[in-house]
Amino acid sequence: MISEHDRIINTLKQTDLFEKSKDSFINELVRQSRIIEAPKGKILFSQDDNAEYFYIIQSGWVKMFRETLDGTQAIIDIRSSHDFIGETAIFENYVYPYSAEAIEPANMIIAPLSTLHDELKNNAIFSLHMLHLIARQKRHQDHEIEHRSLQNAPQRIGCFILQLIPNENKKTREGLTIHLPYDKTLIASRLGMQPETFSRALSKLKNETDIVIKGASVKINDMDKLIGYTCAACSSIFPCNNMTSKNKCENV
Amino acid sequence: MISEHDRIINTLKQTDLFEKSKDSFINELVRQSRIIEAPKGKILFSQDDNAEYFYIIQSGWVKMFRETLDGTQAIIDIRSSHDFIGETAIFENYVYPYSAEAIEPANMIIAPLSTLHDELKNNAIFSLHMLHLIARQKRHQDHEIEHRSLQNAPQRIGCFILQLIPNENKKTREGLTIHLPYDKTLIASRLGMQPETFSRALSKLKNETDIVIKGASVKINDMDKLIGYTCAACSSIFPCNNMTSKNKCENV
Repeated sequence: MISEHDRIINTLKQTDLFEKSKDSFINELVRQSRIIEAPKGKILFSQDDNAEYFYIIQSGWVKMFRETLDGTQAIIDIRSSHDFIGETAIFENYVYPYSAEAIEPANMIIAPLSTLHDELKNNAIFSLHMLHLIARQKRHQDHEIEHRSLQNAPQRIGCFILQLIPNENKKTREGLTIHLPYDKTLIASRLGMQPETFSRALSKLKNETDIVIKGASVKINDMDKLIGYTCAACSSIFPCNNMTSKNKCENV
Repeated sequence: MISEHDRIINTLKQTDLFEKSKDSFINELVRQSRIIEAPKGKILFSQDDNAEYFYIIQSGWVKMFRETLDGTQAIIDIRSSHDFIGETAIFENYVYPYSAEAIEPANMIIAPLSTLHDELKNNAIFSLHMLHLIARQKRHQDHEIEHRSLQNAPQRIGCFILQLIPNENKKTREGLTIHLPYDKTLIASRLGMQPETFSRALSKLKNETDIVIKGASVKINDMDKLIGYTCAACSSIFPCNNMTSKNKCENV
């Protein structure tokens, strides 16, 4: 059986940020890390909490959100395997700028922010890798803002579905069935839509693009039709690479 | 008369990113920089252009936008004095991820990305400063996404107006008159609204908060009323610090 130590090393080595890190730093980070299992609904931390740790997701889904005084939530992003959570608290005086909650059971590595911060201070190349990571997250948010300005609700759902298609199928453009990664209420929130708006928009998308949705499975009969309808109101050209999260889905 | 060399040094020293940089790097950067004057409407670069330079705004306003094939624009951000333009191309394989246009006559320093990149590679502390800058930009975009989910159109205009209030007046909360920094059509685009939506929302905001708008001047009679109405649907508490751009306005 593989030890926790080896599981942590394996995950770190598969993470863009750490894949070129020196063994000495990786070993120090592993020494200070542990694996936690968060059940669905577990709050990892709350917005404005003092921040001591960051998380690397091994499996599952975690939502990042902010909340008004009356409890209304806005989802900032939803992240999955190999993604980070809480890392930007380093740049916010060690205060979490958002809350984080496991929306599906999640396995995560938890490690001290101070160890990450020390390496950033001492290793310019590592800092440059981190800059690439944060810049990619920022580009993702830029595209999200663009989509909220230019795309209508059915197109935004279409874009969400297109991003779930595995890269190899994006090339061949053949029909396929994919699975929605989490429930539709959450997808609506992730896209900043009220449930009733989402529901109407999904019906329109089905009519316009011949996709068939049964429960969590989405059958795409004519990918070109879906792309033509969705990407008409976007500044990127399909297949684009707008998502930071490497959304995974099973190709059935 | 102050020389171009000294004008560039003065601007760099007032920029968060460079204020703690070593003289040797500042001198090298100045040697490779020059000042340009961009008239209103001047395109600095277009999305997907190869990128060689970044810009530091000394005065004026520059919009960052992306465009669909049919020419519809989405404004990503609007920046002003001491802000950077084009710097993230370093993390995009030296391709500009958006277009940039002066929306008011602008004075800018233009400098090679490669000089900035070299310093990032060699100086971890400088990289860390850059990380703070990009993380702040990302937080700004996170808040923008939150506002588009939770705030209605009048509240989003109210938030735009509140951000224009100088810090000292935010503390006293006394009534004041401020000037809109650019024309209303652009403010509408910046907030991702159609002109007619903007117009209706502005009327509603005036009714709800007793502000008086004449041309570009906005008279705030009761700041608490404006704050109460606007910030009810926001996760931050006034006076917040959500904007990357240090929006300047004249306190009349």
